[in-house]
Amino acid sequence: MAKNAIVGQSGGPTSVINSSLAGVFQGCVSRGADNVYGMLNGIQGLLNGETVNLSDILISNLEIELLKRTPSAFLGSCRYKLPHYEKDTSVYEKIFKILNEVEIEWFFYIGGNDSMDTICKLSDYAKEINSNIKFMGVPKTIDNDLMMTDHTPGYGSAAKYIGVVMKEIVRDATVYGTPYVTIVEIMGRNAGWLTAASALAKAEDCEGVDMLCLPEVPFDTDKFLTRTENLLKGQKSIVIAVSEGIKLPDGKYVCELSDDARFIDAFGHKNLTGTARYLSNLIIKKLGTKSRSVELSTLQRCAGHVTSRTDITEAYQVGGAAAKAAIEGHTGEMIALKRISNDPYQCTTQAHDIHKIANFEKKIPLEWLNRDCTDVLPIFHQYARPLIQAELTPIFINGLPQHIYLKNTD
Amino acid sequence: MAKNAIVGQSGGPTSVINSSLAGVFQGCVSRGADNVYGMLNGIQGLLNGETVNLSDILISNLEIELLKRTPSAFLGSCRYKLPHYEKDTSVYEKIFKILNEVEIEWFFYIGGNDSMDTICKLSDYAKEINSNIKFMGVPKTIDNDLMMTDHTPGYGSAAKYIGVVMKEIVRDATVYGTPYVTIVEIMGRNAGWLTAASALAKAEDCEGVDMLCLPEVPFDTDKFLTRTENLLKGQKSIVIAVSEGIKLPDGKYVCELSDDARFIDAFGHKNLTGTARYLSNLIIKKLGTKSRSVELSTLQRCAGHVTSRTDITEAYQVGGAAAKAAIEGHTGEMIALKRISNDPYQCTTQAHDIHKIANFEKKIPLEWLNRDCTDVLPIFHQYARPLIQAELTPIFINGLPQHIYLKNTD
Repeated sequence: MAKNAIVGQSGGPTSVINSSLAGVFQGCVSRGADNVYGMLNGIQGLLNGETVNLSDILISNLEIELLKRTPSAFLGSCRYKLPHYEKDTSVYEKIFKILNEVEIEWFFYIGGNDSMDTICKLSDYAKEINSNIKFMGVPKTIDNDLMMTDHTPGYGSAAKYIGVVMKEIVRDATVYGTPYVTIVEIMGRNAGWLTAASALAKAEDCEGVDMLCLPEVPFDTDKFLTRTENLLKGQKSIVIAVSEGIKLPDGKYVCELSDDARFIDAFGHKNLTGTARYLSNLIIKKLGTKSRSVELSTLQRCAGHVTSRTDITEAYQVGGAAAKAAIEGHTGEMIALKRISNDPYQCTTQAHDIHKIANFEKKIPLEWLNRDCTDVLPIFHQYARPLIQAELTPIFINGLPQHIYLKNTD
Repeated sequence: MAKNAIVGQSGGPTSVINSSLAGVFQGCVSRGADNVYGMLNGIQGLLNGETVNLSDILISNLEIELLKRTPSAFLGSCRYKLPHYEKDTSVYEKIFKILNEVEIEWFFYIGGNDSMDTICKLSDYAKEINSNIKFMGVPKTIDNDLMMTDHTPGYGSAAKYIGVVMKEIVRDATVYGTPYVTIVEIMGRNAGWLTAASALAKAEDCEGVDMLCLPEVPFDTDKFLTRTENLLKGQKSIVIAVSEGIKLPDGKYVCELSDDARFIDAFGHKNLTGTARYLSNLIIKKLGTKSRSVELSTLQRCAGHVTSRTDITEAYQVGGAAAKAAIEGHTGEMIALKRISNDPYQCTTQAHDIHKIANFEKKIPLEWLNRDCTDVLPIFHQYARPLIQAELTPIFINGLPQHIYLKNTD
């Protein structure tokens, strides 16, 4: 009987989720897995019988290298929430039937909060039915909101991208020497880690961002306008970084005040957008100052052309550590990153019980913020700066970065 | 009596306008200019007596190197339109008084259409009053819409940026394997050169963009919806690149149909934005498909972290050639780029009478488009591909690209 592994990717894409895929793949192959299968579009594809044999696809080392440098999810993704098996076992029976047919011993799921919920339920159900399949979670999210891990693979590269473009936006915004308020909208539904990363732009060669609006802090429109007005007394160009997920004291998203709140996804999340545009219009109207909004949009999660080498390396490591742990018999765990030291920065991996991770969210500690919660304190810089260090240049072919993709995922 | 040069930057910033500044500066210094002054915020700053002595600022070669790799305009910019001197000579008298006081022999203005209008008027006026000051234009615009030059410095880097992020957006958009229309809004008021650059994303490793909407082609809403609907029959993820400046057959901007047309600048240009958002909403409403809009916004003009080395080099060359030409006695001209050969790509510089350039606009020839004007033909690829070749990596310090800036321009 063959001993096979299967791996899936889930949730929002990142620049380094494929590096974790490479880590799982090579970790399983080097430990003697007969085949490493990939689920197309995560658990949803698995349920439809849509899998590929990665051992047939990732043949050369150059392909593995391209995989590590290709953003988005090579296997495709999904946002599929498993029901509780106490309520409905039919989906679980189907999944385990498929896994047993393909002789799967080890199951890996690379993703964020919702994906860890999937690992949690599948490993619990496996115990329930005395299945020997091992289920391991591999962390991935630009949001950096997973518990028990120092940070999440994906965050470092997104933070680096945000730092890079913030420096460029600040340079661009000062160019006319006229009063101008630039509002930059950054991803982050409940946690402000990404928006806080814009503070990294401040340096001897950059004035930096003038105000942060984080989702951890209830948004006060009057204070926001007063602060902006005060900033304009001291300088002409103001750059403000806002999380898409900032909320009014009554819990309503600021972007719901605009006309752009459109979708609710399978997990019941609202698709947030329009926060910066709303605030920019408000500034024009209330302060009579020129203003523009910039949405970093999907670019911040898929900018494979500017990644943190630290992040790519760690993403690979958590994948490899997950393979090692599963093959050694672990199940129902997620591989976390454990920081050993800040200076010099050193980080290793550690497995944690998935029950302590799934469905929790890690936010920025309020004590990491200044008194009026418009900036981060040095402790944040000490935390985040090591994560954006070093670069991994894409392989440029004919002027553009080379990617690798599966022609049949779309 | 000293022989001094002065240089200004005008119009929208680019990733490589500072490389032209470096070219002018070093070209003047090496030819014996006593001082090279910089106007802060272009001609507007000059009128306010706001200048710096670049010879005091750009001391080391490292500073010159940082300058070439710093996006936006080092000296600041303006959008200031000179009146016709037949109507009002007072501004001209003031400018020439200032220039004579500072003993300026050579005047350089780095910019696009409007900036060439400034060079045109000042050189004409100089002849009128028998001034010996030489006025040279140095081309700069991401829009690539200047006449008499094969292309404009700034275009290559913006085109490369657009190609890079389009590949990433295409990868990101296919990830869920569900029907999805992504509309990407790209700069370009009247000329579609930048939007057309998104066609460069198509390659053996990328499906490419599915439709272009260029400002050269009147926008037909019904045809747009029908084409999108037809595309959705063959594939799930559709990516469409639209120019911000697309117009309805009656001449109205598509973005005017949304609620976001806000400003009119000193040149009477409308500040265009919201085209993609409007079309995305239209698709949701009319086709019932999920859709999102992405505005590349200012990132496409200031993305110093991904530039074309070809472009940076040529930007430097036109600056140097302008210095040489002015010091050899030329005036009322702009340095153009002349392509010698496509394969291998070779390009040199050539001076042209500014009257043939100022206030004209070069658009994409309609014969470069396919029958229904939704894609570019191979001739565009032959034209644009050489311009995005090779990279100039930023100098990364502490995880982010190092810039150089004047602390007093804001």
